[in-house]
Amino acid sequence: MPPHVVIIGAGFGGLEAARALGRAPLRVTLLDRNNHHLFQPLLYQVATASLSPADIASPIRRVVSRQLNTQVLLADVKAIDAAHQVLLLDEDDEMAYDYLIVAAGASHAYFGHPEWAVLAPGLKTLEDALAIRRQVLLAFEKAERAHDEAERKRLLTFVIVGGGPTGVELAGALAEIAHYSLSDEFRTIEPEHSRIVLIERGPTILPTFPEPLRRAARKSLERLDVEVHEGGTGVTAIEPGLVKFDNHTLAAGTVLWAAGVAASPLGASLGAPLDRAGRVIVNPDLSVPGLQEIFVIGDLAVFSYQGGTPLPGVAPVAQQQGRHAARNVERLIRSLPTRPFHYVNYGNMATIGRGSAVADFGRVHLSGFIGWLAWLFIHIMKLVGFRNRVAVFFEWGWAYLTYQRSVRLITGLGTKEG
Amino acid sequence: MPPHVVIIGAGFGGLEAARALGRAPLRVTLLDRNNHHLFQPLLYQVATASLSPADIASPIRRVVSRQLNTQVLLADVKAIDAAHQVLLLDEDDEMAYDYLIVAAGASHAYFGHPEWAVLAPGLKTLEDALAIRRQVLLAFEKAERAHDEAERKRLLTFVIVGGGPTGVELAGALAEIAHYSLSDEFRTIEPEHSRIVLIERGPTILPTFPEPLRRAARKSLERLDVEVHEGGTGVTAIEPGLVKFDNHTLAAGTVLWAAGVAASPLGASLGAPLDRAGRVIVNPDLSVPGLQEIFVIGDLAVFSYQGGTPLPGVAPVAQQQGRHAARNVERLIRSLPTRPFHYVNYGNMATIGRGSAVADFGRVHLSGFIGWLAWLFIHIMKLVGFRNRVAVFFEWGWAYLTYQRSVRLITGLGTKEG
Repeated sequence: MPPHVVIIGAGFGGLEAARALGRAPLRVTLLDRNNHHLFQPLLYQVATASLSPADIASPIRRVVSRQLNTQVLLADVKAIDAAHQVLLLDEDDEMAYDYLIVAAGASHAYFGHPEWAVLAPGLKTLEDALAIRRQVLLAFEKAERAHDEAERKRLLTFVIVGGGPTGVELAGALAEIAHYSLSDEFRTIEPEHSRIVLIERGPTILPTFPEPLRRAARKSLERLDVEVHEGGTGVTAIEPGLVKFDNHTLAAGTVLWAAGVAASPLGASLGAPLDRAGRVIVNPDLSVPGLQEIFVIGDLAVFSYQGGTPLPGVAPVAQQQGRHAARNVERLIRSLPTRPFHYVNYGNMATIGRGSAVADFGRVHLSGFIGWLAWLFIHIMKLVGFRNRVAVFFEWGWAYLTYQRSVRLITGLGTKEG
Repeated sequence: MPPHVVIIGAGFGGLEAARALGRAPLRVTLLDRNNHHLFQPLLYQVATASLSPADIASPIRRVVSRQLNTQVLLADVKAIDAAHQVLLLDEDDEMAYDYLIVAAGASHAYFGHPEWAVLAPGLKTLEDALAIRRQVLLAFEKAERAHDEAERKRLLTFVIVGGGPTGVELAGALAEIAHYSLSDEFRTIEPEHSRIVLIERGPTILPTFPEPLRRAARKSLERLDVEVHEGGTGVTAIEPGLVKFDNHTLAAGTVLWAAGVAASPLGASLGAPLDRAGRVIVNPDLSVPGLQEIFVIGDLAVFSYQGGTPLPGVAPVAQQQGRHAARNVERLIRSLPTRPFHYVNYGNMATIGRGSAVADFGRVHLSGFIGWLAWLFIHIMKLVGFRNRVAVFFEWGWAYLTYQRSVRLITGLGTKEG
């Protein structure tokens, strides 16, 4: 029997690891709790009614269907028993492994306020995106039916917490919906008078970008009438319909969370050293200290051997680590020493609404329309599957020409909103 | 103040009525509990992972945004107080009307077995379609993980109750998924060995079609390995994982309901005569006996003045009735007598999987590939919105060339399946 390599998670890191092992003389099992790989960088476009879930998701089985050594299973891993080399799955199943690549990712952290989670949903899964889409579209619908002006104003106030790329992109997309897509469709409210507030408690939005690009991003947000609050106290309280930050108390119908990150609890079950966010502090070769047959990659790993600061939780890091972990597994099987990982940074980008983006390619900085074209091109090329590329290209072209949002559906009304 | 016309429901009938009143000197309010109009004839394609919800839904506001006399409100009508000409809405709201067009539609009836509803979901809303899609795709995933052969066989048995167009189309699409789309993606199960059973308790499937077309449909279903059971006892019991019909007891992981229809309870609140399914028996001019300012159209109405048998619950009937009710409202306002409704039947069609359909255009009968092309053409033309037409055309072309299902997403796992 060839050695059994199990990969937990089919995000960017796990999927790349599985692909890298596709022709190796191994048995590969790829586990995920969803049946689809998700292109997370475009998740905010599902949340803001530009793309359908299917446009940014691919069935994992189809992606690896030609790898005859690979089996995909829909399963939720509950814990890792590293001492016995066994995974504990849902349905009381177990699974033995010879080598393990853990790419279980991360979810939201609410700065020690878990009670905020229901009031300020975050954006990590398709379900999150659909819930946010429902909440945002319902805000306009409820405002049109509201009986007094204060209530209408509250419903049309949207707060986004966190000024990283996700927060900036959400704010820009919300401003676009309000100012362009919905105008002329309501008879009582004027969606263009919606208030969109972006709150970053750090000194600046987009902290990983160089200052000239941040300035360009701020200008783009201003043009879209987004209020940007940087470097204050951050959000100090969230109550139903209310947000407190700096010295303000704001009546807001919708609060969205794009701030902290908490690693998957699977990291803790390894018994390895963790950082404050619960991420596994890996060796230079991505293995876990004391467990040479286990590799941790992507958002669940802290890798601090390049310049001291940990690598950011972005797709290229996860993908390069996935390929590298796969190669190290193959080296172990051939009794070769593993090699240290080295990240190659090709760039960093964020888009701010219609026709504007910032892109940092090291020496080359792009902003405005040119930045946006670069952003479009790279994201379409990186999507998994030809069908999704064509579909997204069509949706974007259509949206650009018509100012419309194609996916303005409120679903789940019956089950969730009564 | 011009007279106030309220339309309940933005399905085929209600939307058509609203459009017909778009230029009249009236105030029109269009109420729906969803924010989208749904192209129900293609709903089974969402349930079987061919189309995204957004492809067959259009925001109601956008469809009528140019009608300046029309306001759209997201509201659930709880009851009609015809004596005071007032509607009771959710959120304890009320709304007065001068004229009312009731197009509230229908949901499923389970032949006196309401407890079957959770075991055998029906297909009326987008939420229904997403729940069915989830259940069908999960069946294959669970079978791949199952530990014994009997369980695998049970999970890969799909029963469809009801041999009307919806049941036939669901059965054909399920057979296609199993036989083409999923082959080569599993390592333990063979999806092509799935068993698909269609049960009709009447003497024949597609009872509204002429016999030669039924024969063609049966042949197409046979080619797809669908077992068709007609004219027996029908389903006599549904229990978890089990279906009883005729003299069979079948272990089935998935049971889908495409049979009975129950009218919206709003009909009963009118105090008018109802048929057994709860539908309102309307006057020849579509008004309610004793309430000349209220018109009932579409699936909620029984209209038996043409040949004795009631008109079927299909989109063209609802649309023609919507236009007619709108015209009768205008006549009442101008103090003219209303006119009786007359339905013009342009045809009747159903599709059976890839490249086969039956179409009954009165003297012209089409079946097989030609029938399918006619079906494609007519459905794409009838879709609301240019964007949806292009998107569906692309999805169908893609599916035809690749045998793939583009929307194979299991969502809602976190909330519903744990």
